[in-house]
Amino acid sequence: MDVVTLGETMVTFTSKSSGLMRYASDFAMKVAGAESNVAIALARLGHDVGFISKVGDDEFGEKVRSFIRGEGVDVNKVTSYGGAPTGIMFKEKLTPNEMRVQYYRKGSAASAMTPDDLDESYIAGARFLHITGITPALSSSCLESVLTAVHYAKRNGVTVVFDPNLRKKLWGEEEARSALLEIASMADIVLPGIDEAEFLFGPSSTEQLADRFQELGASVVIMKLGKRGAYVKDHSFTGYVDGYPIDDVVDPVGAGDAFAAGCLSGLLDGLPVEEACRRGNAAGAMVTLVEGDVEGLPTKERVEAFQNQDVKEDVER
Amino acid sequence: MDVVTLGETMVTFTSKSSGLMRYASDFAMKVAGAESNVAIALARLGHDVGFISKVGDDEFGEKVRSFIRGEGVDVNKVTSYGGAPTGIMFKEKLTPNEMRVQYYRKGSAASAMTPDDLDESYIAGARFLHITGITPALSSSCLESVLTAVHYAKRNGVTVVFDPNLRKKLWGEEEARSALLEIASMADIVLPGIDEAEFLFGPSSTEQLADRFQELGASVVIMKLGKRGAYVKDHSFTGYVDGYPIDDVVDPVGAGDAFAAGCLSGLLDGLPVEEACRRGNAAGAMVTLVEGDVEGLPTKERVEAFQNQDVKEDVER
Amino acid sequence: MDVVTLGETMVTFTSKSSGLMRYASDFAMKVAGAESNVAIALARLGHDVGFISKVGDDEFGEKVRSFIRGEGVDVNKVTSYGGAPTGIMFKEKLTPNEMRVQYYRKGSAASAMTPDDLDESYIAGARFLHITGITPALSSSCLESVLTAVHYAKRNGVTVVFDPNLRKKLWGEEEARSALLEIASMADIVLPGIDEAEFLFGPSSTEQLADRFQELGASVVIMKLGKRGAYVKDHSFTGYVDGYPIDDVVDPVGAGDAFAAGCLSGLLDGLPVEEACRRGNAAGAMVTLVEGDVEGLPTKERVEAFQNQDVKEDVER
Amino acid sequence: MDVVTLGETMVTFTSKSSGLMRYASDFAMKVAGAESNVAIALARLGHDVGFISKVGDDEFGEKVRSFIRGEGVDVNKVTSYGGAPTGIMFKEKLTPNEMRVQYYRKGSAASAMTPDDLDESYIAGARFLHITGITPALSSSCLESVLTAVHYAKRNGVTVVFDPNLRKKLWGEEEARSALLEIASMADIVLPGIDEAEFLFGPSSTEQLADRFQELGASVVIMKLGKRGAYVKDHSFTGYVDGYPIDDVVDPVGAGDAFAAGCLSGLLDGLPVEEACRRGNAAGAMVTLVEGDVEGLPTKERVEAFQNQDVKEDVER
Amino acid sequence: MDVVTLGETMVTFTSKSSGLMRYASDFAMKVAGAESNVAIALARLGHDVGFISKVGDDEFGEKVRSFIRGEGVDVNKVTSYGGAPTGIMFKEKLTPNEMRVQYYRKGSAASAMTPDDLDESYIAGARFLHITGITPALSSSCLESVLTAVHYAKRNGVTVVFDPNLRKKLWGEEEARSALLEIASMADIVLPGIDEAEFLFGPSSTEQLADRFQELGASVVIMKLGKRGAYVKDHSFTGYVDGYPIDDVVDPVGAGDAFAAGCLSGLLDGLPVEEACRRGNAAGAMVTLVEGDVEGLPTKERVEAFQNQDVKEDVER
Amino acid sequence: MDVVTLGETMVTFTSKSSGLMRYASDFAMKVAGAESNVAIALARLGHDVGFISKVGDDEFGEKVRSFIRGEGVDVNKVTSYGGAPTGIMFKEKLTPNEMRVQYYRKGSAASAMTPDDLDESYIAGARFLHITGITPALSSSCLESVLTAVHYAKRNGVTVVFDPNLRKKLWGEEEARSALLEIASMADIVLPGIDEAEFLFGPSSTEQLADRFQELGASVVIMKLGKRGAYVKDHSFTGYVDGYPIDDVVDPVGAGDAFAAGCLSGLLDGLPVEEACRRGNAAGAMVTLVEGDVEGLPTKERVEAFQNQDVKEDVER
Repeated sequence: MDVVTLGETMVTFTSKSSGLMRYASDFAMKVAGAESNVAIALARLGHDVGFISKVGDDEFGEKVRSFIRGEGVDVNKVTSYGGAPTGIMFKEKLTPNEMRVQYYRKGSAASAMTPDDLDESYIAGARFLHITGITPALSSSCLESVLTAVHYAKRNGVTVVFDPNLRKKLWGEEEARSALLEIASMADIVLPGIDEAEFLFGPSSTEQLADRFQELGASVVIMKLGKRGAYVKDHSFTGYVDGYPIDDVVDPVGAGDAFAAGCLSGLLDGLPVEEACRRGNAAGAMVTLVEGDVEGLPTKERVEAFQNQDVKEDVER
Repeated sequence: MDVVTLGETMVTFTSKSSGLMRYASDFAMKVAGAESNVAIALARLGHDVGFISKVGDDEFGEKVRSFIRGEGVDVNKVTSYGGAPTGIMFKEKLTPNEMRVQYYRKGSAASAMTPDDLDESYIAGARFLHITGITPALSSSCLESVLTAVHYAKRNGVTVVFDPNLRKKLWGEEEARSALLEIASMADIVLPGIDEAEFLFGPSSTEQLADRFQELGASVVIMKLGKRGAYVKDHSFTGYVDGYPIDDVVDPVGAGDAFAAGCLSGLLDGLPVEEACRRGNAAGAMVTLVEGDVEGLPTKERVEAFQNQDVKEDVER
Repeated sequence: MDVVTLGETMVTFTSKSSGLMRYASDFAMKVAGAESNVAIALARLGHDVGFISKVGDDEFGEKVRSFIRGEGVDVNKVTSYGGAPTGIMFKEKLTPNEMRVQYYRKGSAASAMTPDDLDESYIAGARFLHITGITPALSSSCLESVLTAVHYAKRNGVTVVFDPNLRKKLWGEEEARSALLEIASMADIVLPGIDEAEFLFGPSSTEQLADRFQELGASVVIMKLGKRGAYVKDHSFTGYVDGYPIDDVVDPVGAGDAFAAGCLSGLLDGLPVEEACRRGNAAGAMVTLVEGDVEGLPTKERVEAFQNQDVKEDVER
Repeated sequence: MDVVTLGETMVTFTSKSSGLMRYASDFAMKVAGAESNVAIALARLGHDVGFISKVGDDEFGEKVRSFIRGEGVDVNKVTSYGGAPTGIMFKEKLTPNEMRVQYYRKGSAASAMTPDDLDESYIAGARFLHITGITPALSSSCLESVLTAVHYAKRNGVTVVFDPNLRKKLWGEEEARSALLEIASMADIVLPGIDEAEFLFGPSSTEQLADRFQELGASVVIMKLGKRGAYVKDHSFTGYVDGYPIDDVVDPVGAGDAFAAGCLSGLLDGLPVEEACRRGNAAGAMVTLVEGDVEGLPTKERVEAFQNQDVKEDVER
Repeated sequence: MDVVTLGETMVTFTSKSSGLMRYASDFAMKVAGAESNVAIALARLGHDVGFISKVGDDEFGEKVRSFIRGEGVDVNKVTSYGGAPTGIMFKEKLTPNEMRVQYYRKGSAASAMTPDDLDESYIAGARFLHITGITPALSSSCLESVLTAVHYAKRNGVTVVFDPNLRKKLWGEEEARSALLEIASMADIVLPGIDEAEFLFGPSSTEQLADRFQELGASVVIMKLGKRGAYVKDHSFTGYVDGYPIDDVVDPVGAGDAFAAGCLSGLLDGLPVEEACRRGNAAGAMVTLVEGDVEGLPTKERVEAFQNQDVKEDVER
Repeated sequence: MDVVTLGETMVTFTSKSSGLMRYASDFAMKVAGAESNVAIALARLGHDVGFISKVGDDEFGEKVRSFIRGEGVDVNKVTSYGGAPTGIMFKEKLTPNEMRVQYYRKGSAASAMTPDDLDESYIAGARFLHITGITPALSSSCLESVLTAVHYAKRNGVTVVFDPNLRKKLWGEEEARSALLEIASMADIVLPGIDEAEFLFGPSSTEQLADRFQELGASVVIMKLGKRGAYVKDHSFTGYVDGYPIDDVVDPVGAGDAFAAGCLSGLLDGLPVEEACRRGNAAGAMVTLVEGDVEGLPTKERVEAFQNQDVKEDVER
């Protein structure tokens, strides 16, 4: 297996009309979660991926499982839990540029994950273990699970990838900083946003923030700079990698996950880090052109065509 | 004010297609809750009604408030609470005859209601206080609130109406039985279903179960017998009141609330209890002909036309 | 041309959900009108039909015109009128068995029709002129137009067909009775409902009511008896013709128009009146199986298969 | 009560697809009307508002009433009228930048409003009476009603606010000019658009047009200049107030009403006129970001955040 | 693996409105195919199932693959083929009781399946090989593929299950009879409909038709008799097994597939054939209660509850 | 008749959501085809047009026929063919700027057209015969039909109009070049795109490419240059005609057809070629503002208003 990741996937409901959700009449059901987004993105790019999670013993749990499985991600480690419902979420498009979410995930099935849900051999069989900063924020048993998973990875020589994904709605700042730093200190590859880096280390230059992650132990640092692209640092390359500017962003959600997956895909394929990062930039750009977190994710063929500016209209009649 | 009631109102999401909810793509948003259903039904029938509740400081809270206010129910005592979200619910029509619900109401804003949310003078100004067995099941502070409300009613000469509405998903049987009996013992008018009566007193005949409620203190007992109608007992009348048989039930949910509202409407209008019960039977039957809990509720004019079998097709072109 | 008819066609809006229209969020747009329903039904059955009408110089007028033209009916005599909007109508499905309509047709473009809109040669070129009791109810100039059309038919040897289609919402009873009797007295074929016959002549037996129409001058009387079928009387046959019982009526609206068209189609094809009436019964039954006034209208092939009980499931995979 | 307004509210139907309405298949039902838009906007901003109107005794009347009541506006003076239907309207989005409307409001229930429908004490109890130039255009009895309402306001010391809202489709130019000038001459606060000012007084500079309103008697003149903002003149301030430029206008309809409400809200809160106008500019800008006339109206908290450029994306997962 | 099956799965489009498809405006996309229906039904019942097929290298191919994979069926043997599109199908609900289909499957990717697409070890690893009479009708290379698959099964000791599923639209009668008899003669378990049995052997009694299949070599014969249930014959039991009568059939399509899967599930679980057949009857009945071929398929828990008449309403609030 | 055209019209299905079609749930049905688009555009502009085609004997054939007939195009020469289905097509909006189509038109009814389907007198009665390069690509019998039609036109003095409309998906490059050149050599008016001209004659300047068409025999050459407009050459005018720039293109499909129709309309009206081309530019621009191939086509009144920049917002309330 190329990558194993763990986290919570939610069923999302999006109002079909924009504006305050109180005026909505219809909602569309989709599936989303940072870690499963990454898993699906990697599967779309041709990699072999496994997902570890817990869902409620309910229809939404079945929806989550079948959707992710349908995308070609292994869900043998997604277990059902009768004690709590599957987490859900509402997305409200207030204006063309302002989005709000409302969670019903507190006490969800996924937040009941414990280290006992982890199978060391499953993690040991992967090249990369992908961790985000969302899963440890869900509950103390989830934090423990993440630390245990990282521990399993380390002792089996599995590369640990960490995307901080700070969620201030889910935990206190102090608690968050401490836990995220602990995980970062065990990671081999980190993919922080610039804001997240400043949250962890205080205001500083992009270059210095990258250094701080390396001091903590990361051998590859890929710092996300939004539309400007990324700042990348590993043993062979240090510098900025430009993003692909998108004029008509349809839905920005999921861009960070697609970026992370694109980078990991490149690294798994043995590309130099700056090339891997270009794939990340392209995947991140492409997913914003389509409504939904994963609906716009590219195959390897399409991401390469996009990088070569080769995607064009193809309408005949 | 004719009637004051208190309880939780939820935003409901119903799949637009029948079958397992995992296959749904679209959901319609509506508003429902036993107590607000009764309040709306009474307002539709021309009465002056007030609703006491707590909603989250979120869009669903605004939806609940504006929907109920739009129906002409006073919502000045519906407060916003920033500490928890508005409760929501999913309705899944498995087959034409089998419906399932999934709640996200645990720890909702309404379950944070406390006696401090009650204004004695508001209750004192009503002729009837309407209580269901759902509200006390939401949390211990909700149980306390219900008991306090009943206490306010009793010491201000307000008639206490009690509809047991047993919800086994929300609390344990022992706890439920004890609380419901305590409330029943303070009620003047009770509207139990036959199953609920047996849950409280053990298996027995309809007549004897009605007696047990009177022994507890109720002066009016209206026992719901489903399609067969009701068994009614007060100082002036004892006997069965036939229901209105409906062949094409579209949505059975809300029938009990419409029945209760019809009975209370009749009593408020000074009808003899058997006549009031007929209005309840008609309102309960009518609401099942339309999708949704309140969408089929009749005005007084329409319920009387229905009782006179005077509702008919009126299509011209 | 086989048949020419004249009248008002409206754009109709039907709520996508049942129950009180105030709760609707979406409406579907269709096109309907008794006379154009008959015209479309006849075209579907293979006849050559022309429609005379006036529509507003607006999008709804274009909708009416293109829909009817699309069905193969000649609309060269459907003129646009800038002085008033196209009439529209809302259909509200209160319960599975109760439907209500709300018109916005008062002062519509069609009600501005005058005798000047009629081209005698167009009417003279038809075998049948089809008239309903709705058109004369729209305005006094419409009544005049109908009388003029009938006059043109009579002096050119065109058979006059009259379907009373009483609409009490559109005019007073006295006015209606007088006008309908005047038209009936000039008709060769009449297709009254039993209620309409009683409205015109007072309560009486089916047989006697049919006689009254013959005394007025009709040579063929086809009296609609709803589900029971029809009572038919001409020079060669007198008696009852059974209907086709339908268990799962989806939408009863349009059945009368389909019946009329089926009968006329049979007569145009030279069938004996009882056979023509059977075709009418079948067409009327078939249209009720589908939502909408014209969407379920049969071709000649399908109506004959239905009469031979030859319509069956045809699902393969 | 802070503000009382009177006018016609219609049920609106908007095609779900853009382009010529003849090709539409589905329409969405909403509620709109300049005066009720202002009333709702003010209620959203925290003010106490009352609406005077007449609706048909039909489902659309109930829709209008419950929608406005749901928004927290007092509708005790919205009466039902059996003699005419509630006015309705169709909105057709021809292209992204071209919109057309089609009314069915001629002879509507609201146009039957008369001075008898006005309760002097209701108007007397308000700080502001809000009048638009649409209501007097509906019928002569509506014009009379407006003049009577203004008269009641004047003799009870209620500030008269006038927004000309010229509608050339509804009345002749001469008639319009004369009536609007008469009302303007009694108004304390006027909110004309620059085109409307020129319609009333002939072409002239913005400054001179504002002077003309002051000469007529207005103490506060707020002249709308579209995207450029407004020109404001009262005893303490004279000058231009910049608007908030919006790139992604979703639906421009309702901007003027939101602007008026924002200004009035500021004045009610005791802000200097230029500050009040800024609130108007912000509210007007915000409402264009959302489909519908009122769906994007801000609360006071949100309008202030917008003015401080503090509204931003808030998406977490 | 418990069962391997092979065949064509199509993307289906169903009009959202009933009646002639020419009037439809919206279509819903689903996935269906007799063999994948059986595979999904078995997976839902807890079995380990593999599907062999070919899809186009297009979006519909991806849809088919991800849908079936999402249901837990192994799709490693579903290959993509660039030379032809994925087959599709339209379903038209003419009336509540009459359905029609229109195929675009001629020359589809699946019809290009050849024996080279079969992996003997994949088939050898299963307990049952499931074959229908549809696959051999698609093309001569498909017929060859089916015969090869059966051959692989026979020489590896895999039980061959055959459901004739006669499709006269797809091939000529002579060709069909000859091919189906050839396959039947190699099958261990046959599940013919009574009509199909008569098609193969000529008119005869149910009992004699079953004998004919046994003479051909089948050890288990389960003859489908529609609503009446089935006639079953193996070494230990001979007789009729009653069906579960369903009043409110929503969608009959897929019932035969669910029946087959229920029977196979029972046999895989070691139930006596009459018990297995009861499970088939129940599964077949349950699937007709829901729109779609697979959406109503039961889990083992639900099918057993249904057989015990234990499925009931579960609505609380 | 002004213009006769022949070709294939398909029913098109467009996903209601953007992104990969595999994620779609709903599709909207429309009707499209280059030649019928031109026919409809000309009818909308007030011309008398006839369409020659073959459709399947199925619902989609009826849809095609009634849609085109509804638009006022003569369809007496659109015949039904039982041997093959009507061609259909799926449109997939991958991103705001990238569209893909998938055809199911191979072996369609239209591709079975033969010279026998042509009625020489029908073509002889037209002023223009309009031919595209799509029809000859459908099948060899279609190529023959086109050549025959052109032959009929030539010998009856009908002007031959040719729009190359190269479709590389439908035939090989050599075959296409040879056939298109053959048709071009018989055409009087040609409307090639610049790419198509280069495909036929090899890379060259716009001016020289136009010369080549004239050398082949065309008296009027209108070369499409996309947003830049067109290069026009006839006996009286040679030069560039600017296009109308459109910022908010909603759907580019159909612009070329609208352009062609606009040019032909102008020529039919006797405008100089540069004026005709301006009408073409305007029609082409206008149709891109609306979803769908024909939904945004202008009437003559609207196209002239657009050319005079006179189209503006018209929203009143």
